[in-house]
Formats: sequence, structure tokens, C-alpha cells
Amino acid sequence: MAVGLTALPELHPVSGIRVGTSRAGIRKKDRRDLVVIECAPGTQAAAVFTRNRFSAAPVQVAREHLAARPPRALLINTGFANAGTGQPGIESARACCQALAQRLSCAPEEIMPFSTGVIGERLPVERVVAGLPAAVSALSGDGWAEAAYGIMTTDTLPKGSSRRMILGGREITVTGIAKGAGMIRPDMATMLAFVATDADASPAALDRCLRSAAAVSFNRITVDGDTSTNDALVLLATGRAGNPRIEVDGPDYERLREAVSEVCAQLARAIVRDGEGATKFITIEVTEGKSKEDCLAVAYTIAHSPLVKTAFFASDPNWGRILAAIGRAPIAELDVDRISISLNGVAVVRSGALASDYTEARGAEAMAQAEITVRVALGMGAATDTVWTCDLSHDYVRINAEYRT
Amino acid sequence: MAVGLTALPELHPVSGIRVGTSRAGIRKKDRRDLVVIECAPGTQAAAVFTRNRFSAAPVQVAREHLAARPPRALLINTGFANAGTGQPGIESARACCQALAQRLSCAPEEIMPFSTGVIGERLPVERVVAGLPAAVSALSGDGWAEAAYGIMTTDTLPKGSSRRMILGGREITVTGIAKGAGMIRPDMATMLAFVATDADASPAALDRCLRSAAAVSFNRITVDGDTSTNDALVLLATGRAGNPRIEVDGPDYERLREAVSEVCAQLARAIVRDGEGATKFITIEVTEGKSKEDCLAVAYTIAHSPLVKTAFFASDPNWGRILAAIGRAPIAELDVDRISISLNGVAVVRSGALASDYTEARGAEAMAQAEITVRVALGMGAATDTVWTCDLSHDYVRINAEYRT
Repeated sequence: MAVGLTALPELHPVSGIRVGTSRAGIRKKDRRDLVVIECAPGTQAAAVFTRNRFSAAPVQVAREHLAARPPRALLINTGFANAGTGQPGIESARACCQALAQRLSCAPEEIMPFSTGVIGERLPVERVVAGLPAAVSALSGDGWAEAAYGIMTTDTLPKGSSRRMILGGREITVTGIAKGAGMIRPDMATMLAFVATDADASPAALDRCLRSAAAVSFNRITVDGDTSTNDALVLLATGRAGNPRIEVDGPDYERLREAVSEVCAQLARAIVRDGEGATKFITIEVTEGKSKEDCLAVAYTIAHSPLVKTAFFASDPNWGRILAAIGRAPIAELDVDRISISLNGVAVVRSGALASDYTEARGAEAMAQAEITVRVALGMGAATDTVWTCDLSHDYVRINAEYRT
Repeated sequence: MAVGLTALPELHPVSGIRVGTSRAGIRKKDRRDLVVIECAPGTQAAAVFTRNRFSAAPVQVAREHLAARPPRALLINTGFANAGTGQPGIESARACCQALAQRLSCAPEEIMPFSTGVIGERLPVERVVAGLPAAVSALSGDGWAEAAYGIMTTDTLPKGSSRRMILGGREITVTGIAKGAGMIRPDMATMLAFVATDADASPAALDRCLRSAAAVSFNRITVDGDTSTNDALVLLATGRAGNPRIEVDGPDYERLREAVSEVCAQLARAIVRDGEGATKFITIEVTEGKSKEDCLAVAYTIAHSPLVKTAFFASDPNWGRILAAIGRAPIAELDVDRISISLNGVAVVRSGALASDYTEARGAEAMAQAEITVRVALGMGAATDTVWTCDLSHDYVRINAEYRT
């Protein structure tokens, strides 16, 4: 049911990165569920993780390992989130790192672990370890597409994005993969996204690049408002492209930031397009706010309203629900007489009242589209911001009622 | 599908109040949709209304009229919310008041109007006016039960509550009716609840009584987190019981407050039991918080999580979703190692980790009940608070996708 999401785009190899996927039977048989992303020596990494206080064991271990040394490999499993598992969960994550480190002849601290799946159940370490040989022997520069499948859970389609450009006279590649599709309201990062480049960039430039990209991509999407315990976004830079090293204030920084942001934004929107049960892809643009925070508060209140989301599912131009959501948004100042609302360019509300040229037929036509842009002008200032979300359908309830069965 | 809600309890007449209901065909044919609640001269009234900035036209008019004079009648229609209708909506509400005032030989400012239904469409004043004679001729002290039906929209059952007691040597009655069943996350009041007593009470005592009752009833329930544009809770006191007038600091105030609070709490819980698509009635008790605000923030984050709500619908003890919701609750301090969670008395999490005696079978048994109490102990202090909610089922999506058809 993914909206406007079809085949994976071509995912260009990134010099210095090899990716391998296997079927380890971690939760279900015969499903790609284990991924290794190997980085050449000298690779720099930046990462952002969930702000949920119940961060998963792998998140805690990955954070600790990254602080100690740059990674030589990322290890990702699906099926179990290894969250809410206490100290035994930490030990499970460490045991997986240990097993992969042995096989790659590196230190356990050079492995960053990531998990996604059911919260609160023990990670079957023995199955992860048993699946490692196949994943390692599959390692290849061309392994990205397989890995995009390998990290899926309730996703119906794999998500990937890739860009090439010339920087400092050398061809640079940025390639990334991500997964959704529920518990999606990332706060600093999302439910597993991995982006790599062969560009040479300083750790400071890489970190800033990643935070800037997250802010306009993963931190602007929501499926259900539920911030996951396992969100993680990693940016790897192998430096193999041979370009002059990119510094924060350097001439090429902005172009790298743009490329990484574009890849992240495409991945983030792909997660929403394939949100659990999604039949509509909704862009909520809030303009004329006093601050970006106000714009975001209004956008998220609309995006999280179950009544608005079910109206989108029904293609019902029940704009009163959008208006009611705006009216309860947690912002300090709101003048209802200045608000305007449009749906795919059809003016619905102008200066707080029904637009004189609005007709139910025009509203219905706008709402019938698979992709809908809701534009809300607050009439309070010049700030603007955008959030992407999807509708709430029968399938969302079905998928999440049956999730563990 | 209402949970634990069956026939209306006996609704005792309130001396000085007459209630009449008619079928005015306002939105659908042959449906009770118009209610008049007539108050004897000298009746005092207190009311709280929605805090949604897009308050409906009747809310604005009712507020204005109540400030001018005590009401002689309340006029309630379903089918159309008369919200988001601008100045013409205000004029429609006034026209309805005018018509009833003429019939009851009082001033238009002595009528308080209330509407519920679809937002953004014009209220067909002519149908309301045409339905008034039948409603007025039906006026009777025994009309409460009919009126409980007359204010229903997506409700599947009527909601009413009634109490009798001796105060100052006289028998006092408190009777109320309310409606749900969607766009329910009242903020100061709920989607139409009317409570009357024949007790004699000062306006100050009545107002304080109502605010106190709202705080522990309607302001503690949520179905979908969407605060309506039309919420209103009204308390009428005819003074006909002949008891010594109740003052804020007087000896009988506390007993009146308790009775009104009990009636309001029963009505509020009835709204949740009959929440759109509800199959489970969930009580969320948060204890050991630093403040009541913290407790409420945690309780509402759990109550609004679509993932938690679908797990309840599925009777799936997927407690990881509760934990993830707590982890993202907007409170300043949270120590995950101090948190305990139980489901209907079954300990699930103790001190942040899975309880050693927890089994999936015990969790499944707790979740299979139609009424579930989630107890969360934060381990941070002594504050406590409770919120009532329901699950998110297929029927919620169906009802709201088909609402206007």
C-alpha cells in the first residue's frame, strides 16, 4: 500500500564500504534479517540516536562504542528490538559485537550494534551469531539493495537513496538505506537509517552534516507519533574518494550537506510513504508562524490527530477536523481570524472563515489524490516549517493488532 | 460495543427542571435530535466550555448569554456543530435562541444554545425552529431519559447519572446526562454534559463545585486526544429543594461537591466506555510522580499512543509499547530504573526491568479482560493521577472514515 514508492533506485557502491546480508531465522524463517556493513580502516562515523528514555540496549552499546573508536562494522538484526531487556540485553548486544569482531579480526568496540523488532523480548544471540558467517561471506560493494531488504520489518518495500557529484575534483558518492514503518515519530533520528559516503570529511564536518540533515528529514516525519526506543541514524565517511578533506567552514561543506540532506529526506519520506497501512502521503506546510517551533507544533497536532488521519483515509474533505486540531495546538498565541487553510491548492479557509469560492466538490477532488499538501497560514509572522505524515487506515489497526502473531 | 455500559440508570426528576425532546430531522430523519431543558425562575447556572481556540458559535453565544443573565432554558441540537461557521454561525445560534425565547416568553439572552455534529457546515435554523413546538410540548420533569437519547451522535448508548441525598434536612437530587463519543479529549469540559440539582447553592459555590467536578471527571478522559470545538458542561441549581443555601465555605458544600463529582465521573467514564469503536475500558493510574502534572503527562502519553491502543484492542500484552510511551512522555525528569508497571495487578516491570515472576500467559490473561487498569509507578515522589481511555479498534477507523456519509 506504499504511496508513490516503487522499485529501489540504483544504489551506487561507496568505495570502502562492503555490505552483506543473510537469513538467520532470528524471528521468522527464510527472511533476510541480518546485515553487516563493513567500513574500511580510517572511516569516520557520526550518529544520532533516539531521545526516548528507554533507549534500547544496542543503542546504548553503539553510542558507547562510537565514543571509544571509529567503527569497522555495523551489525543490524530485525525481529527483536532488544529494548526493555535490562542488563541481560546489554550483554546480548555485547556478545553479538564480540562474535562479529572475532570474525573480522577487530576489537568488539569497533562494532556498532542495531536492533529492530518487538520490544521487551530477549534477543536470541545464538541465532545472530549463527547467521554471521553467511552475512560476512556475502560482503560486497554491491550489497546495499539486499541490505535494504534485510532491515525491513513491517515495511512493504525497501527504502534506499543514492547521489553522485564532483567535489574537489573527485567523484563522490552518498548512499543510504532506511526502514520504517511504525512507531515512527523520530526525535533526533529514525528507526534505523544508514548512510555512507566515500568523501573525505573531518569528524566535525561529518557530525554537523548529519545533525543538519536529520533536522530536515527524519525529524520532520511522523506515522503515529510514537518515538521508538531504537531510532538510529548513522553517517559513514570512508575518505576513499581522494577529495581534499571537507571541513566545517570549507568550500565543499555545503554541497556535501545538501547531498546528505537529500538522501536523508528521500529515505525519510519513503518511510512515511510506506507507513503502516498508509494509503495517502500528506505534506503539512505551516507558514506565517511567529517561530519555527509554533509552525512545528501546529503541523504535528494536525499530523497526529486520529480524526484528521481517518478523514484523509476516507478522502473526506472534513476540514473542520483540521481546524479543530489547529485550535488545540500547544502554542502561546493564535488568532483564529487570521488562519487560512488550503488542500492541494484549493482554498478552504481564508481569514478564519470558509473561503467563498470553496465547494465540497473541489474539496473532495483534492482529498481524492494519493498525495495531499495541507497548507496552513497562521498570519502571525514569517516562520515556516514542514512535516510529512500518512493517513490512519484499517490496515494500521490490523497490522498493529496482529504485530506479534 | 460499549464496555460495561448497559441500560440507563434511573434518572430522578429535579424539582424546577423540565426536559423535552423532539425529532426535528435536523440531519437525519426520525431521530431524536433536539432537546430543551427548561429551568424554573431563580435557577442558578455554572458552565465550563472548550479551550479549543476555534470554539463553536453556540459556545460563544452560550458564554455571552450566561454572563448576562441566568438561563431559563438550554437548547441542544445534534447533526451540526455550528463550528467554523463564522459570523453567519453566530447569527444562526442567536436565531434559534430567539425562536425558543418567544415560545417560552423570556428574553433571548435567557437561552443557552448547544450544538454537536459535523464541523463547518451551516446549521439549518429552519429545521431547529420547526422542531421546537414538539420539544416544548414534551417538557416534563421525567424527560431526562429521552433527552439522554436526544443528544447522542456516534454514541451507541445514552449516558445518565443521578444521586439523591439529605442536605440541610431536605432531600436533594443531582441528575445529569452527557454524550460522546469521538473528538474526546476535553479541556475544561466535555462534548455536552448537563447536570441539574434542586439544591439551593450560591453562584460561587456552584461555580467552584462544577470546576472541581470537571477536574476529576471530564478533564481526565480521552478517546482520541482531539479536543472538540463544542465541549460544554453545565450545572443548573433550581434551589427548589428548600435546603439552607450552600455557600463555598459552608458545612454542606463538600457533600454537594462530592455528589456532583460522582455524577460527572460516572458520565465521563460512560463516554469512554462508549468511545468510538471501544472494546476495552482502560484506567491509567500513574503514581509516585514528582507532581500531578508529571503523572498526567505520562498517563496521557500512554492513553494517546496508537500503538498502545491497538495492543489493547488485540488483547496483546505488548508492554514494550507502554514502556516506549513512558520513555517519550514530555516530563523533565525520568529515571527508567525506578519505573514499575502492572496490568490488572500483574507486575510486568519492576525497577525498570521485566518482573521476574512475569509470564506471557499472565500478561495475556490480564489483557484479555474488558476492563484493564494500567498502573505505572514512577518512583520519583508522592503525586498521583488517573486518566480513563479506551482502545483503538477497526471500528474507530470505520466510524470516522464514514462519519459524514
